[in-house]
Amino acid sequence: MKRVYVVLYDNFEALDVFGPVEALGITDEYKIHFVSLDGGIIENDQSIKIVTEPMKSIQNNEILLIPGGFGSRKIINDERFINALTEAAVNAEYVLCVCTGSALAAKTGILDGKNATSNKNAFDWVVNQGLKVKWNREARWVVDKNIYTSAGVSAGMDMAVGFIRDRFGEEKALTVCREMEYHWNDDWEHDTF
Amino acid sequence: MKRVYVVLYDNFEALDVFGPVEALGITDEYKIHFVSLDGGIIENDQSIKIVTEPMKSIQNNEILLIPGGFGSRKIINDERFINALTEAAVNAEYVLCVCTGSALAAKTGILDGKNATSNKNAFDWVVNQGLKVKWNREARWVVDKNIYTSAGVSAGMDMAVGFIRDRFGEEKALTVCREMEYHWNDDWEHDTF
Repeated sequence: MKRVYVVLYDNFEALDVFGPVEALGITDEYKIHFVSLDGGIIENDQSIKIVTEPMKSIQNNEILLIPGGFGSRKIINDERFINALTEAAVNAEYVLCVCTGSALAAKTGILDGKNATSNKNAFDWVVNQGLKVKWNREARWVVDKNIYTSAGVSAGMDMAVGFIRDRFGEEKALTVCREMEYHWNDDWEHDTF
Repeated sequence: MKRVYVVLYDNFEALDVFGPVEALGITDEYKIHFVSLDGGIIENDQSIKIVTEPMKSIQNNEILLIPGGFGSRKIINDERFINALTEAAVNAEYVLCVCTGSALAAKTGILDGKNATSNKNAFDWVVNQGLKVKWNREARWVVDKNIYTSAGVSAGMDMAVGFIRDRFGEEKALTVCREMEYHWNDDWEHDTF
């Protein structure tokens, strides 16, 4: 089973995390691990207190999921965090970013020269975190080599189902949607927000 | 601020919980509390470990959110849990059930004689938990007086946005959708699953 490491920090956005976790988890192809810089309990604005492992436990050649949230605006200035994220990101087989998670990924440099998208409500701030990134304001999600980035919050679920389709085929993706009773927005190129 | 008590138990379904929590939380109208029978850490199949308060801390005239998940099939036979859930449910201002959470609500008796729906993939099992309930197999979600029930997993988000619309009006509901970049399935009567 491949591992998915979900990188948490205080004030992450709930659905950025648990939308993709639901879709990836329901495939029975992935073991989910929640990590944070030093491990321990991470809390967000919706009073979610979740137990995490330290980021140093992340193994190479697995999948990294980087959610967004208001907390990203603080932790992007934490040098220890960005260093740990950079090491995890350059050694991951795939990196999936939701919402302003792409700003954190941009800060590591892994998006330089690549196509990416992010939350429409925070786009200008995100652009300034990675001036060498080819930002796409129109997409629901973007794939460039091994890096997936999605628009805000709910778009992470559409991207995650797209990721499952790309790995296991359309039929598996549609099975996931049926099990989640989820209406997949499968047009990655166009977002209505 | 109204309180929302989210009733967790081992092997709850992630999106049943965090979809509605995202929608309700983003309104800034609700304080979310995660509770379980005895409090402490609750874990699910996707390795989510959440810190909870004990159910005895639930206050009357607030909102109760009952998620589904495979764990519902076990805990429905736990008499202490059902007794605690019954007390919380009869004293709540509103009860919101997602997926097989409606089976747990049915077991308390609060759905007797009322219209309700549930997960399409588990419908027959759910029906058998509440033979006096008027089950609706076609709906995305159902409202009967102060009790909301939704179809499986993702439908909980559509119901939560509907609940917000019913409390605060259409404009607030659409603002929530914009902030979540969420395509709301607002036709409660018809589900495609």
